[in-house]
Amino acid sequence: MAVTPAAIAAAVDAVRARSPLVHCITNFVSMDLAANTLLAAGASPAMIHAAEEAAPFAAIAGALYVNIGTLDATWVASMEAAVASAKAAGVPWVLDPVGVGATPWRTAVAARLAASGPAAIRANPSEVLTLAAAVGAAAGAGGGGKGVDSTHGSDEAVAAAARLAAATGAVVVVTGATDYVVGPAAAAAAVGVTGGVPLLQKVTATGCSLSGLVAAFLAAAPATEEGRITAAAAACAMFAAAAEAAARGPDGGAPATPVGPGTLRVRLLDELHALGGADVAKVVRLSTVPRP
Amino acid sequence: MAVTPAAIAAAVDAVRARSPLVHCITNFVSMDLAANTLLAAGASPAMIHAAEEAAPFAAIAGALYVNIGTLDATWVASMEAAVASAKAAGVPWVLDPVGVGATPWRTAVAARLAASGPAAIRANPSEVLTLAAAVGAAAGAGGGGKGVDSTHGSDEAVAAAARLAAATGAVVVVTGATDYVVGPAAAAAAVGVTGGVPLLQKVTATGCSLSGLVAAFLAAAPATEEGRITAAAAACAMFAAAAEAAARGPDGGAPATPVGPGTLRVRLLDELHALGGADVAKVVRLSTVPRP
Amino acid sequence: MAVTPAAIAAAVDAVRARSPLVHCITNFVSMDLAANTLLAAGASPAMIHAAEEAAPFAAIAGALYVNIGTLDATWVASMEAAVASAKAAGVPWVLDPVGVGATPWRTAVAARLAASGPAAIRANPSEVLTLAAAVGAAAGAGGGGKGVDSTHGSDEAVAAAARLAAATGAVVVVTGATDYVVGPAAAAAAVGVTGGVPLLQKVTATGCSLSGLVAAFLAAAPATEEGRITAAAAACAMFAAAAEAAARGPDGGAPATPVGPGTLRVRLLDELHALGGADVAKVVRLSTVPRP
Repeated sequence: MAVTPAAIAAAVDAVRARSPLVHCITNFVSMDLAANTLLAAGASPAMIHAAEEAAPFAAIAGALYVNIGTLDATWVASMEAAVASAKAAGVPWVLDPVGVGATPWRTAVAARLAASGPAAIRANPSEVLTLAAAVGAAAGAGGGGKGVDSTHGSDEAVAAAARLAAATGAVVVVTGATDYVVGPAAAAAAVGVTGGVPLLQKVTATGCSLSGLVAAFLAAAPATEEGRITAAAAACAMFAAAAEAAARGPDGGAPATPVGPGTLRVRLLDELHALGGADVAKVVRLSTVPRP
Repeated sequence: MAVTPAAIAAAVDAVRARSPLVHCITNFVSMDLAANTLLAAGASPAMIHAAEEAAPFAAIAGALYVNIGTLDATWVASMEAAVASAKAAGVPWVLDPVGVGATPWRTAVAARLAASGPAAIRANPSEVLTLAAAVGAAAGAGGGGKGVDSTHGSDEAVAAAARLAAATGAVVVVTGATDYVVGPAAAAAAVGVTGGVPLLQKVTATGCSLSGLVAAFLAAAPATEEGRITAAAAACAMFAAAAEAAARGPDGGAPATPVGPGTLRVRLLDELHALGGADVAKVVRLSTVPRP
Repeated sequence: MAVTPAAIAAAVDAVRARSPLVHCITNFVSMDLAANTLLAAGASPAMIHAAEEAAPFAAIAGALYVNIGTLDATWVASMEAAVASAKAAGVPWVLDPVGVGATPWRTAVAARLAASGPAAIRANPSEVLTLAAAVGAAAGAGGGGKGVDSTHGSDEAVAAAARLAAATGAVVVVTGATDYVVGPAAAAAAVGVTGGVPLLQKVTATGCSLSGLVAAFLAAAPATEEGRITAAAAACAMFAAAAEAAARGPDGGAPATPVGPGTLRVRLLDELHALGGADVAKVVRLSTVPRP
């Protein structure tokens, strides 16, 4: 099960060709950037959370994206109704467990959602370590983290990601200098996607937006484990390629003044919009990491 | 009842001169861009939705703007209280029925609001087709649409817009490559405002922001049907002129790299801020379309 | 108790060195910009408002930031729980009373929060005048204002700010062409920080973002009155320096086309990210104003 540049190119082009409808129940901080990220990549986002419509809308979407960043009890009820509906309709859904570990209640919500059959989970390293512990998939004591920011590198979380995948059936994406994508199958290696720029960590909701992009890619991909892994890796590759191009500035060279976080956020959308599958395939840096 | 470039110039300048207070009850995705759009055009936005203050605040605003994008039952109650208060106080209000048709509940909410006396309704073509059917103003079966995105051109929705206007008493604005503005009077033609750039569809909340701008223009205009039509057409003309200038890039020429959606969103605000009435009048492309 | 450029430089550098966790319960309009402002200045923001976690999370944060812009009764309950928890844990908290005066209910909420021991209050002049009257700290009749925008200059509100500080124990920051920082001690002068650009008023949530920055600076400062005043003045100085640099455009000169509000918002974040303590100290314009 090798993820190839050609497969990534096809996945990027499939999102543009099909323009999947992505139902987002995401946090307030991320709504603007997540919607613009999805539009720039060719998908069609809709933010809908009301008790009266979360379930029926999830059933007709191409994919559902659930992000717990600014959750409260009302929103959690809608997330759970939407998830049940998506599953019943065969709609893939993605979980972003933002800030899991910040409070016991948040950890319990994230663990319950993780155990409800997501097609993929996208999180930072501290979140993966904490969530793996919360679902009983890790021997260790959890991941620390500071609020919603990670205090670990992605390398440190690959083993926990593999255990989380096995425990939940989800493809798990742990992002950092290298993003790692790992599926539930016991023998499978992890796929590494190296890229992006550290400055992304100074722009809020970039991780949330990548999670939404994973949902769009799942909507346009086969539901097999291989299909989901390729889709998730392609979303990471597209986002990384856009970030790198954005950081090079509008002229594509080394800008006289380094690009700051405000400009990076703007140009990230410009570059996402400009990228085709072949562009992403040309720059993607893939690796295979033995399952820890 | 001809809308002239001179009337449009006067409307743009009236908003800057009076800086109307616009009470917005709008969706989470659009709040940032809608507020910045209103500030750039010279208005004073305030986002207020609490049950305790939506009604009293609507009564003292220059206009009320209601957008159902991320509605839930609590927010709908506040919208209805604010609408009742605005009507009692003679404050004009604008409805943006985002995603009407996505679920039966959303359609019912939108239809109920549309029947509550908005001064104007601003929507994309699929939404106009669906809303016209929902209020019993159209013979057809509704508008389709995909989530919150339109699957129709504005040309296809002019007849439905005219029927929706007649049924609700609102001036209806249906936006697209040409924006059409049509009032309730049975014999009146529709006003066409051609402009803008297709890339606006890749920037979330631009339609929502234009709806807010229509509210600001209504606050600074006579409440007559002619006054409302001119105000709505002027808001469309200002937004289109700003988008076109934004797409030309900071040098005002054909940029070497086409402006992407991130940059377009930023420059749209720069250009809205820079435009005076005379600037808009110089580039506006008006047309008259016989009532279908 | 003189605030010096050297003290301001140290405060700016302390935020970057410690990267304090800032718990934000703020309005929907401001979440994106406030989070990005805090990240750009080196802090770690987290937006958390659920009844189940507002209190426990406030206790482990470096500072708490409460902003009433888009309040409703549920959020007010969370704000009050978080405030009580922060106080019990010795965590400083900042109040931004957005739009106080817009409705009687909002005024009552703001007054109750102001009387609950904030370490600092940051507001525009109309809000300071209104809030001082509401807590019984002013003889006058309140501040007017239009929705969330001020109708007064900061000079007009220094006396009210001093009375509000004395009545609440908070350091009060009233922002305008000159920002004034005044503590509760009866004999103390106010500190003036002159800077920024008027165009900031055309960018939504810049005031809210500065309030969040004050919270980050408090988290990295001594809890004494002098420490709080220096921290608040340093946050104002850093924000003003970034805004001035942003308005000069990417080349740092007088741009051919004046920077508009869309570009100002983007470049503000770039410049906040680039500024070190020495940079801020070099351009800060401090003054001392006798307590009115």
